[in-house]
Amino acid sequence: VRVGEYLFRRLQEEGVTHTFGIPGDYALSLYAAQEACGMPTLVMTHEPSVGYAADVYARLKGLGVALVTYGVGALNMVNATAMAYAEQSPLLVITGAPEVQWQDQNILFYHRVKSAETQLRVYQEVTAAQASIRAPAEAAAEIDRVIGTVKKLSRPGFIEIARDIVDHAIEPPPQRPSVVPAIVNAEEAAGMEEAMREIVGRLQASKRPVLYAGVEIERFGLMREFQELVDKTRLPVATSLLGKAVLPEHHPSFIGTYFGRIGLESVRQYLEGSDCVLALGMLMTLMDTGIHTGVIDRSRLIQVTTQGTSISHHQYPQVTLPAVLRALLRLPRLKKSKPPSRPAPQPVPKVTEKTLTMNGIIAELNGFLTPQHLVLADTGDCLFASVELRADYFIGPGYYASMGLAVPGAIGAQIARPDLRPLVLVGDGAFKMDGIEVATARDYGLTPIIVLINNRTYATLKVSLGDRPYFRLRPWDYVGLAQALGGQGVQVRTREEFHRALRLAEASTDFWIIDAVIDEKDTSLTLQKLGEELQAKTGRKEKGKREGKRSDR
Amino acid sequence: VRVGEYLFRRLQEEGVTHTFGIPGDYALSLYAAQEACGMPTLVMTHEPSVGYAADVYARLKGLGVALVTYGVGALNMVNATAMAYAEQSPLLVITGAPEVQWQDQNILFYHRVKSAETQLRVYQEVTAAQASIRAPAEAAAEIDRVIGTVKKLSRPGFIEIARDIVDHAIEPPPQRPSVVPAIVNAEEAAGMEEAMREIVGRLQASKRPVLYAGVEIERFGLMREFQELVDKTRLPVATSLLGKAVLPEHHPSFIGTYFGRIGLESVRQYLEGSDCVLALGMLMTLMDTGIHTGVIDRSRLIQVTTQGTSISHHQYPQVTLPAVLRALLRLPRLKKSKPPSRPAPQPVPKVTEKTLTMNGIIAELNGFLTPQHLVLADTGDCLFASVELRADYFIGPGYYASMGLAVPGAIGAQIARPDLRPLVLVGDGAFKMDGIEVATARDYGLTPIIVLINNRTYATLKVSLGDRPYFRLRPWDYVGLAQALGGQGVQVRTREEFHRALRLAEASTDFWIIDAVIDEKDTSLTLQKLGEELQAKTGRKEKGKREGKRSDR
Repeated sequence: VRVGEYLFRRLQEEGVTHTFGIPGDYALSLYAAQEACGMPTLVMTHEPSVGYAADVYARLKGLGVALVTYGVGALNMVNATAMAYAEQSPLLVITGAPEVQWQDQNILFYHRVKSAETQLRVYQEVTAAQASIRAPAEAAAEIDRVIGTVKKLSRPGFIEIARDIVDHAIEPPPQRPSVVPAIVNAEEAAGMEEAMREIVGRLQASKRPVLYAGVEIERFGLMREFQELVDKTRLPVATSLLGKAVLPEHHPSFIGTYFGRIGLESVRQYLEGSDCVLALGMLMTLMDTGIHTGVIDRSRLIQVTTQGTSISHHQYPQVTLPAVLRALLRLPRLKKSKPPSRPAPQPVPKVTEKTLTMNGIIAELNGFLTPQHLVLADTGDCLFASVELRADYFIGPGYYASMGLAVPGAIGAQIARPDLRPLVLVGDGAFKMDGIEVATARDYGLTPIIVLINNRTYATLKVSLGDRPYFRLRPWDYVGLAQALGGQGVQVRTREEFHRALRLAEASTDFWIIDAVIDEKDTSLTLQKLGEELQAKTGRKEKGKREGKRSDR
Repeated sequence: VRVGEYLFRRLQEEGVTHTFGIPGDYALSLYAAQEACGMPTLVMTHEPSVGYAADVYARLKGLGVALVTYGVGALNMVNATAMAYAEQSPLLVITGAPEVQWQDQNILFYHRVKSAETQLRVYQEVTAAQASIRAPAEAAAEIDRVIGTVKKLSRPGFIEIARDIVDHAIEPPPQRPSVVPAIVNAEEAAGMEEAMREIVGRLQASKRPVLYAGVEIERFGLMREFQELVDKTRLPVATSLLGKAVLPEHHPSFIGTYFGRIGLESVRQYLEGSDCVLALGMLMTLMDTGIHTGVIDRSRLIQVTTQGTSISHHQYPQVTLPAVLRALLRLPRLKKSKPPSRPAPQPVPKVTEKTLTMNGIIAELNGFLTPQHLVLADTGDCLFASVELRADYFIGPGYYASMGLAVPGAIGAQIARPDLRPLVLVGDGAFKMDGIEVATARDYGLTPIIVLINNRTYATLKVSLGDRPYFRLRPWDYVGLAQALGGQGVQVRTREEFHRALRLAEASTDFWIIDAVIDEKDTSLTLQKLGEELQAKTGRKEKGKREGKRSDR
């Protein structure tokens, strides 16, 4: 077996069916090796999009691969990889590299920055495991090590292979180091027992327990177990924004996405008022607390992650999410809670209103989405508005919050899950970044429906600084653009037109851009509340400043 | 004076008139400070483009600024900054950062990767100077230090400022450390004298001396001195691809762009046959030797750069380009060489041919370009073909060779030099990456003419690996695209149509996309010769391999 073949066979064993990439000189031997293994690459237009598509594929399949060239390719998707790191996505970045001799002789080859190691050093900052493979003998072990870490931590990894060793024959390792179940020593078992006693004790003593579910449930393949737990206990479930739809949102136990004071008020009251919040699989980021507007009292909080468990203010570092989930499932006598009634739907403008609004768009989507849709929301008000959306499949950058994930991500999503139709919610600012990638959907017969929120502005930024010339976005002819790229488009300005456009797109086998024109000042309820929170905070701060100044005199 | 104000006033002192950027949350206090200083930002669509536009502005003005947000912004332009590093462009990347408290308390704020320092650590790999400013007291000195290094080395720098200190009042430094002329000690003066004796001696003894001019002449503001030297000595001048047009190419002493065996044969013969090559301001990269196809005999080579001088095999580390250039200008008795006759123009297809070809496009452009055009060539055959182009202003990624510079770069170019009309030469592969940025030209009334080489393939990659499905590019409706973005477009398929399209665009005040359709197999002469070189090399290698195998038996 040759180095390249070993790599792609390993990926196939891990269930990888496609890679995402852009070919380039140093990566050509890898592309040829991949071709020989019968693995296709979806050729995207630009490396940031490669990263986003592979990231979304990774989120849905447990491993996603970007195959790009050295330097100019890899360094062009650092942000995409950083997002995958922050949001715990098992993205593997594979690149070629100059031949060993060029690296060693310090030749000023093209795509070189400071030294041959520049891209490796950059990737050390945004991945959990890295390998620079320059000798055939080490290749198999290094490939296994990086893939192993990516799978284990659900964080990105990085492999670069000198292009002249890709075709070298190697001895495959006689047997792959199989995943040996960790031997639990007596100390650890006792710790686990103690933690479970406490968790179960708190749940049973609680009058109104609630599950607060995070993204690790999905990333570590625990969605089935989690749903089993929910069905068994009938505990109500809220999710974080990043963890949105780890329980399909039409499930009767789902009460909503928690987002502090700027999210749904009914969810906030239930979660913050609970005497026992069992948070499963979430890192409690700034976003998980509704940008610091929410307060989950730590004395009532049990937080279980893949990195350990904390209960109130004490910690069990060895007690991790998969073990706790399984232990909870084994317990026979878990208290059954009656799920609360579903929160009342948000008030939305009446259909009789001629104009289209963000709230109207969300209301329409809630009436349109089926379990056959996968929603991808981009950063900005689309992400904020998604708090109010009910989706069974949802992907959004709910922590790292980079713009640009949704349109390229739809390519990765439909390749990973051809049974689902991607529906993208993207603002004009994010669409301008890389929305052109929708052209690639046409190349491969994919059919995303893009709902482009055309408000001619970076709406989220206006919340902080008011209207500024550098927040304004000139509208493009998005319908003409869709047609120029080989798809279809329609502009809508009323709720009724939007309603019809969704159905038109749904019935079509093309990709669609629905250019949804709303007022420049219109925002979702969430963003509106965020604005109010910021103003109140700034007002308080300003007040404090003035007082401070006065006392200075 | 406040921190932000100090920063933008300093930039204005350095001649910066505009920044390029995309606003974002952590950068808003910087944007507000900039606005207060009356400095406008050109808002681009995507951060890679921000980097390319600011890079080109930097190449033309001596300092260019990208103003982007923390994490998601800065990490999205690592490749652009890496290119600026490799190609010695004085690009300054400025970003906001989370408030000091968030950084210190290790809060999981949005846009965070591994730690608050991630982006700083990444930028250490691709810039020459970095500052993370967290205390007002250090701000002025740190800003001065980074700007100073960027100017001195003509390499990128990086400044991040915690958003909550941007409005803090500071004492401006009482007087800026002025650039003190380096005190030349006796040892150094003696070294300089020795080197100059040797250089002049070689030039005078030479039968056919030639200047080989590189990009440092432009980057270090030495173009006037260099041209004076050329006029004074009448020495013939070849340039490298990266240094192309450091002497306006209609100058009578210019003999062509050297690119080894794959470039112009007349230039190769002159340069490689010379008994004294004086290379000024070039690093001798792989590209500067025509991808290792050229051989400039070191025993006949004098190489002077900003990092030192080497003559044959010995070095004068203290003897640098500006000093040598000035010393040469002071010498009265430099041998006058009669400039050789200009190399015969490349054979080009007759106009009677109906079809459009790469060679025909270059021939047409050579008949079209005036000293009022600035050519930007993107990576791929456009860059290779530029070897045969005569331009007075030229920018191309002639070393790092990343795709994507040219279209966004045209924005930076026309802002820096409103007196020049940008003409972009870009392949469909590179155009698909970020050609959409041409929309920004419309936003600001800029008028680039984009010549889009539509060959439906990554032509350069085919040279190595033949035709492969992942090299094919589906043609978009580029004319429709141009119109959707607010500009004009025309598709041309014959040389006559191309001829007319250039004049149509030239007369217009819109941006134009000329969709120049050529055959999939058509390439420039340079790329054709590169293919032949590679085949010959591979053939030799294959032959070597077979022989190796035989002897193994």
